Amino acid sequence: MNAPAPSTPPIHEAVAHLSFLLGHWIGKGSGHYPTIDDFAYGEQVWFEHVGKPFLSYRQGTKDATTGLPLHAEVGYLRPVGTTAVELVLVQPSGIVELHEGEVDGTTLRLRSTAVLTTATAKDVTAVQRSIDVDDDQLSYDMSMAAVGLELQHHLSATLTRQ
Amino acid sequence: MNAPAPSTPPIHEAVAHLSFLLGHWIGKGSGHYPTIDDFAYGEQVWFEHVGKPFLSYRQGTKDATTGLPLHAEVGYLRPVGTTAVELVLVQPSGIVELHEGEVDGTTLRLRSTAVLTTATAKDVTAVQRSIDVDDDQLSYDMSMAAVGLELQHHLSATLTRQ
Repeated sequence: MNAPAPSTPPIHEAVAHLSFLLGHWIGKGSGHYPTIDDFAYGEQVWFEHVGKPFLSYRQGTKDATTGLPLHAEVGYLRPVGTTAVELVLVQPSGIVELHEGEVDGTTLRLRSTAVLTTATAKDVTAVQRSIDVDDDQLSYDMSMAAVGLELQHHLSATLTRQ
Repeated sequence: MNAPAPSTPPIHEAVAHLSFLLGHWIGKGSGHYPTIDDFAYGEQVWFEHVGKPFLSYRQGTKDATTGLPLHAEVGYLRPVGTTAVELVLVQPSGIVELHEGEVDGTTLRLRSTAVLTTATAKDVTAVQRSIDVDDDQLSYDMSMAAVGLELQHHLSATLTRQ
Protein backbone atom coordinates (compact mmCIF):
# COMPACT_ATOMS: atom_id res chain seq x y z
CA MET A 1 0.00 0.00 0.00
CA ASN A 2 3.08 2.27 -0.25
CA ALA A 3 2.65 3.56 -3.79
CA PRO A 4 -0.98 4.54 -4.38
CA ALA A 5 -2.19 3.82 -7.90
CA PRO A 6 -3.11 6.87 -9.97
CA SER A 7 -6.81 7.68 -9.73
CA THR A 8 -7.29 7.48 -13.51
CA PRO A 9 -4.86 4.96 -14.97
CA PRO A 10 -4.57 4.84 -18.78
CA ILE A 11 -6.91 2.37 -20.42
CA HIS A 12 -5.36 -1.06 -21.12
CA GLU A 13 -4.73 -1.54 -24.83
CA ALA A 14 -6.70 -4.80 -24.78
CA VAL A 15 -9.94 -2.92 -23.99
CA ALA A 16 -9.33 0.28 -25.96
CA HIS A 17 -11.75 -0.83 -28.68
CA LEU A 18 -14.49 -1.15 -26.02
CA SER A 19 -14.01 2.41 -24.74
CA PHE A 20 -17.24 3.47 -26.50
CA LEU A 21 -19.03 1.85 -23.55
CA LEU A 22 -17.22 3.78 -20.81
CA GLY A 23 -19.14 6.20 -18.68
CA HIS A 24 -22.21 6.73 -16.55
CA TRP A 25 -25.49 6.29 -18.41
CA ILE A 26 -29.01 7.27 -17.31
CA GLY A 27 -32.26 6.44 -19.08
CA LYS A 28 -35.52 4.57 -19.15
CA GLY A 29 -36.61 1.10 -20.15
CA SER A 30 -39.55 -1.25 -20.31
CA GLY A 31 -39.97 -4.89 -19.44
CA HIS A 32 -42.23 -7.59 -20.77
CA TYR A 33 -42.66 -11.30 -20.12
CA PRO A 34 -45.68 -13.57 -20.54
CA THR A 35 -45.83 -14.46 -16.86
CA ILE A 36 -45.78 -10.90 -15.45
CA ASP A 37 -47.35 -7.47 -16.08
CA ASP A 38 -45.45 -5.08 -18.36
CA PHE A 39 -43.40 -2.58 -16.38
CA ALA A 40 -41.43 0.64 -16.89
CA TYR A 41 -38.22 1.55 -15.13
CA GLY A 42 -35.54 4.19 -14.73
CA GLU A 43 -31.98 2.92 -15.01
CA GLN A 44 -28.40 3.88 -14.35
CA VAL A 45 -25.49 1.99 -15.92
CA TRP A 46 -21.77 2.34 -15.33
CA PHE A 47 -18.98 0.92 -17.51
CA GLU A 48 -15.59 1.59 -15.91
CA HIS A 49 -11.98 0.48 -16.18
CA VAL A 50 -9.04 0.33 -13.75
CA GLY A 51 -6.21 0.07 -16.29
CA LYS A 52 -6.56 -3.72 -16.55
CA PRO A 53 -7.70 -5.79 -19.54
CA PHE A 54 -11.41 -5.82 -18.61
CA LEU A 55 -14.30 -3.39 -18.10
CA SER A 56 -16.47 -3.46 -15.02
CA TYR A 57 -20.22 -3.15 -15.51
CA ARG A 58 -22.93 -2.34 -12.99
CA GLN A 59 -26.45 -1.09 -13.19
CA GLY A 60 -29.49 -0.43 -11.06
CA THR A 61 -33.13 0.14 -11.95
CA LYS A 62 -35.98 1.81 -10.11
CA ASP A 63 -39.71 1.49 -10.60
CA ALA A 64 -40.75 4.37 -12.88
CA THR A 65 -43.75 5.13 -10.67
CA THR A 66 -42.66 4.52 -7.09
CA GLY A 67 -38.91 5.18 -7.39
CA LEU A 68 -38.20 2.04 -5.38
CA PRO A 69 -35.19 -0.11 -6.34
CA LEU A 70 -36.13 -2.94 -8.71
CA HIS A 71 -33.08 -4.74 -10.04
CA ALA A 72 -29.31 -4.62 -9.96
CA GLU A 73 -26.52 -6.56 -11.60
CA VAL A 74 -22.75 -6.36 -11.73
CA GLY A 75 -20.16 -8.04 -13.90
CA TYR A 76 -17.07 -7.87 -16.02
CA LEU A 77 -16.55 -7.66 -19.78
CA ARG A 78 -13.42 -9.43 -21.00
CA PRO A 79 -12.21 -8.92 -24.57
CA VAL A 80 -10.56 -11.84 -26.35
CA GLY A 81 -8.60 -10.26 -29.16
CA THR A 82 -10.36 -7.46 -31.02
CA THR A 83 -13.74 -9.01 -31.85
CA ALA A 84 -14.59 -11.73 -29.32
CA VAL A 85 -15.77 -10.85 -25.80
CA GLU A 86 -16.72 -12.70 -22.64
CA LEU A 87 -19.15 -11.40 -20.02
CA VAL A 88 -19.56 -12.72 -16.47
CA LEU A 89 -22.43 -11.28 -14.48
CA VAL A 90 -24.19 -11.79 -11.15
CA GLN A 91 -27.57 -10.69 -9.83
CA PRO A 92 -28.86 -10.39 -6.24
CA SER A 93 -31.76 -12.64 -7.29
CA GLY A 94 -29.26 -15.53 -7.20
CA ILE A 95 -28.54 -15.74 -10.93
CA VAL A 96 -25.11 -15.84 -12.60
CA GLU A 97 -24.57 -15.57 -16.33
CA LEU A 98 -21.58 -16.43 -18.53
CA HIS A 99 -21.68 -15.06 -22.06
CA GLU A 100 -19.67 -15.17 -25.23
CA GLY A 101 -20.12 -12.74 -28.07
CA GLU A 102 -18.55 -10.25 -30.39
CA VAL A 103 -18.09 -6.55 -30.83
CA ASP A 104 -18.69 -4.95 -34.23
CA GLY A 105 -17.94 -1.24 -34.23
CA THR A 106 -20.04 0.11 -31.36
CA THR A 107 -22.39 -2.87 -31.22
CA LEU A 108 -21.98 -5.72 -28.74
CA ARG A 109 -23.86 -9.01 -29.09
CA LEU A 110 -23.75 -11.63 -26.34
CA ARG A 111 -25.26 -15.09 -25.88
CA SER A 112 -25.19 -17.00 -22.61
CA THR A 113 -23.03 -20.11 -22.57
CA ALA A 114 -24.29 -20.90 -19.06
CA VAL A 115 -26.85 -19.53 -16.64
CA LEU A 116 -26.72 -20.90 -13.11
CA THR A 117 -29.12 -20.18 -10.29
CA THR A 118 -29.09 -20.80 -6.57
CA ALA A 119 -31.61 -23.23 -5.11
CA THR A 120 -34.06 -20.43 -4.22
CA ALA A 121 -33.72 -18.37 -7.43
CA LYS A 122 -36.08 -18.12 -10.38
CA ASP A 123 -35.39 -20.68 -13.10
CA VAL A 124 -33.55 -18.86 -15.91
CA THR A 125 -31.90 -21.04 -18.56
CA ALA A 126 -30.66 -18.71 -21.35
CA VAL A 127 -30.09 -15.00 -21.95
CA GLN A 128 -29.13 -12.91 -24.97
CA ARG A 129 -27.96 -9.32 -24.63
CA SER A 130 -27.22 -6.73 -27.29
CA ILE A 131 -25.91 -3.22 -26.73
CA ASP A 132 -25.68 -0.48 -29.36
CA VAL A 133 -23.94 2.84 -28.73
CA ASP A 134 -24.49 5.82 -31.03
CA ASP A 135 -22.38 8.71 -29.76
CA ASP A 136 -23.83 9.46 -26.31
CA GLN A 137 -26.87 7.19 -26.60
CA LEU A 138 -26.82 3.56 -25.46
CA SER A 139 -29.66 1.18 -26.34
CA TYR A 140 -29.91 -2.40 -25.25
CA ASP A 141 -32.15 -5.37 -25.67
CA MET A 142 -32.26 -8.42 -23.44
CA SER A 143 -34.01 -11.72 -24.22
CA MET A 144 -34.50 -14.44 -21.63
CA ALA A 145 -35.65 -18.04 -21.38
CA ALA A 146 -37.16 -18.47 -17.92
CA VAL A 147 -39.73 -20.50 -15.96
CA GLY A 148 -39.95 -23.07 -18.76
CA LEU A 149 -40.58 -20.60 -21.61
CA GLU A 150 -38.53 -20.19 -24.80
CA LEU A 151 -35.96 -17.43 -25.27
CA GLN A 152 -37.86 -14.22 -25.95
CA HIS A 153 -37.70 -10.45 -25.58
CA HIS A 154 -37.71 -9.28 -21.96
CA LEU A 155 -36.14 -5.82 -21.60
CA SER A 156 -35.19 -2.82 -23.72
CA ALA A 157 -33.95 0.60 -22.69
CA THR A 158 -32.29 3.73 -24.02
CA LEU A 159 -29.81 5.68 -21.90
CA THR A 160 -27.80 8.86 -22.33
CA ARG A 161 -24.16 9.31 -21.37
CA GLN A 162 -23.81 11.80 -18.48
CA MET B 1 -38.40 8.12 -10.48
CA ASN B 2 -40.88 10.47 -8.72
CA ALA B 3 -40.41 9.31 -5.15
CA PRO B 4 -36.70 8.98 -4.42
CA ALA B 5 -35.89 6.13 -2.08
CA PRO B 6 -34.46 7.16 1.29
CA SER B 7 -30.67 7.13 1.26
CA THR B 8 -30.48 4.71 4.19
CA PRO B 9 -33.50 2.41 4.12
CA PRO B 10 -34.06 0.22 7.17
CA ILE B 11 -32.47 -3.20 6.94
CA HIS B 12 -34.77 -5.95 5.66
CA GLU B 13 -35.77 -8.31 8.48
CA ALA B 14 -34.57 -11.30 6.42
CA VAL B 15 -30.94 -10.09 6.61
CA ALA B 16 -30.98 -8.53 10.09
CA HIS B 17 -29.07 -11.51 11.52
CA LEU B 18 -26.27 -10.84 8.98
CA SER B 19 -25.85 -7.21 10.00
CA PHE B 20 -22.62 -8.10 11.82
CA LEU B 21 -21.02 -8.08 8.35
CA LEU B 22 -22.15 -4.60 7.35
CA GLY B 23 -19.60 -1.88 6.85
CA HIS B 24 -16.35 -0.94 5.22
CA TRP B 25 -13.39 -3.07 6.25
CA ILE B 26 -9.66 -2.46 5.66
CA GLY B 27 -6.82 -4.85 6.38
CA LYS B 28 -4.06 -7.10 5.16
CA GLY B 29 -3.85 -10.64 3.89
CA SER B 30 -1.54 -13.25 2.48
CA GLY B 31 -1.87 -15.73 -0.36
CA HIS B 32 -0.36 -19.11 -0.98
CA TYR B 33 -0.72 -21.76 -3.66
CA PRO B 34 1.68 -24.47 -4.81
CA THR B 35 1.89 -23.09 -8.35
CA ILE B 36 2.74 -19.47 -7.46
CA ASP B 37 4.98 -17.48 -5.10
CA ASP B 38 3.50 -16.48 -1.74
CA PHE B 39 2.20 -12.91 -1.78
CA ALA B 40 0.96 -10.21 0.62
CA TYR B 41 -1.84 -7.78 -0.06
CA GLY B 42 -3.81 -4.87 1.31
CA GLU B 43 -7.58 -5.24 1.09
CA GLN B 44 -10.79 -3.30 1.35
CA VAL B 45 -14.16 -5.05 1.76
CA TRP B 46 -17.66 -3.60 1.73
CA PHE B 47 -20.84 -5.36 2.90
CA GLU B 48 -23.88 -3.16 2.21
CA HIS B 49 -27.66 -3.38 2.03
CA VAL B 50 -30.37 -1.46 0.18
CA GLY B 51 -33.36 -2.50 2.29
CA LYS B 52 -33.90 -5.70 0.33
CA PRO B 53 -33.44 -9.32 1.49
CA PHE B 54 -29.77 -9.62 0.47
CA LEU B 55 -26.40 -8.06 1.24
CA SER B 56 -24.07 -6.83 -1.48
CA TYR B 57 -20.40 -7.71 -1.16
CA ARG B 58 -17.39 -6.23 -2.94
CA GLN B 59 -13.72 -6.13 -2.31
CA GLY B 60 -10.47 -5.07 -3.89
CA THR B 61 -6.87 -5.94 -3.10
CA LYS B 62 -3.58 -4.20 -3.84
CA ASP B 63 -0.07 -5.57 -3.88
CA ALA B 64 1.42 -4.83 -0.45
CA THR B 65 4.68 -3.66 -2.03
CA THR B 66 3.73 -1.83 -5.22
CA GLY B 67 0.22 -0.65 -4.33
CA LEU B 68 -1.03 -1.81 -7.72
CA PRO B 69 -4.52 -3.38 -7.96
CA LEU B 70 -4.40 -7.18 -7.70
CA HIS B 71 -7.85 -8.69 -7.45
CA ALA B 72 -11.50 -7.69 -7.18
CA GLU B 73 -14.76 -9.55 -6.74
CA VAL B 74 -18.39 -8.63 -6.25
CA GLY B 75 -21.42 -10.62 -5.28
CA TYR B 76 -24.56 -11.01 -3.23
CA LEU B 77 -25.28 -12.88 0.00
CA ARG B 78 -28.81 -14.28 0.21
CA PRO B 79 -30.12 -15.65 3.50
CA VAL B 80 -32.50 -18.61 3.40
CA GLY B 81 -34.25 -18.52 6.74
CA THR B 82 -32.06 -17.77 9.73
CA THR B 83 -29.18 -20.22 9.30
CA ALA B 84 -28.78 -21.10 5.61
CA VAL B 85 -27.17 -18.67 3.16
CA GLU B 86 -26.45 -18.53 -0.56
CA LEU B 87 -23.61 -16.55 -2.12
CA VAL B 88 -23.24 -15.65 -5.80
CA LEU B 89 -19.98 -14.02 -6.80
CA VAL B 90 -18.16 -12.89 -9.94
CA GLN B 91 -14.52 -12.04 -10.64
CA PRO B 92 -12.95 -10.04 -13.49
CA SER B 93 -10.72 -13.06 -14.13
CA GLY B 94 -13.79 -14.73 -15.68
CA ILE B 95 -14.80 -16.86 -12.70
CA VAL B 96 -18.27 -17.12 -11.16
CA GLU B 97 -19.00 -18.94 -7.91
CA LEU B 98 -22.26 -20.20 -6.40
CA HIS B 99 -22.10 -21.17 -2.74
CA GLU B 100 -24.31 -22.61 -0.07
CA GLY B 101 -23.53 -22.43 3.61
CA GLU B 102 -24.66 -21.44 7.03
CA VAL B 103 -24.32 -18.66 9.57
CA ASP B 104 -23.62 -19.49 13.21
CA GLY B 105 -23.55 -16.39 15.39
CA THR B 106 -20.99 -14.14 13.68
CA THR B 107 -19.36 -16.94 11.67
CA LEU B 108 -20.21 -17.68 8.06
CA ARG B 109 -19.14 -20.90 6.32
CA LEU B 110 -19.64 -21.38 2.59
CA ARG B 111 -18.89 -24.18 0.12
CA SER B 112 -19.18 -23.80 -3.64
CA THR B 113 -21.97 -25.76 -5.30
CA ALA B 114 -20.65 -24.65 -8.70
CA VAL B 115 -17.68 -22.75 -10.07
CA LEU B 116 -17.87 -21.77 -13.73
CA THR B 117 -15.17 -20.14 -15.80
CA THR B 118 -15.07 -18.49 -19.20
CA ALA B 119 -13.05 -20.15 -21.96
CA THR B 120 -9.99 -17.97 -21.26
CA ALA B 121 -10.09 -18.11 -17.43
CA LYS B 122 -7.95 -20.11 -15.05
CA ASP B 123 -9.39 -23.55 -14.25
CA VAL B 124 -10.97 -23.30 -10.77
CA THR B 125 -13.24 -26.17 -9.74
CA ALA B 126 -14.13 -25.64 -6.05
CA VAL B 127 -13.91 -22.95 -3.40
CA GLN B 128 -14.58 -22.80 0.34
CA ARG B 129 -14.91 -19.51 2.20
CA SER B 130 -15.24 -18.82 5.90
CA ILE B 131 -15.68 -15.44 7.56
CA ASP B 132 -15.50 -14.73 11.29
CA VAL B 133 -16.40 -11.37 12.80
CA ASP B 134 -15.36 -10.46 16.35
CA ASP B 135 -16.68 -6.98 17.12
CA ASP B 136 -14.87 -4.74 14.63
CA GLN B 137 -12.44 -7.36 13.35
CA LEU B 138 -13.21 -9.56 10.35
CA SER B 139 -11.04 -12.57 9.49
CA TYR B 140 -11.53 -14.83 6.53
CA ASP B 141 -10.02 -17.93 5.01
CA MET B 142 -10.43 -19.08 1.43
CA SER B 143 -9.53 -22.51 0.05
CA MET B 144 -9.46 -23.29 -3.64
CA ALA B 145 -9.13 -26.26 -5.99
CA ALA B 146 -7.51 -24.94 -9.17
CA VAL B 147 -5.33 -26.00 -12.10
CA GLY B 148 -5.90 -29.68 -11.30
CA LEU B 149 -4.93 -29.49 -7.60
CA GLU B 150 -7.06 -30.54 -4.63
CA LEU B 151 -8.98 -28.05 -2.49
CA GLN B 152 -6.45 -26.33 -0.22
CA HIS B 153 -5.74 -23.11 1.63
CA HIS B 154 -5.22 -20.11 -0.65
CA LEU B 155 -5.96 -16.83 1.15
CA SER B 156 -6.36 -15.46 4.66
CA ALA B 157 -6.73 -11.91 5.88
CA THR B 158 -7.74 -9.83 8.88
CA LEU B 159 -9.57 -6.53 8.43
CA THR B 160 -10.85 -3.81 10.75
CA ARG B 161 -14.23 -2.09 10.48
CA GLN B 162 -13.80 1.59 9.56
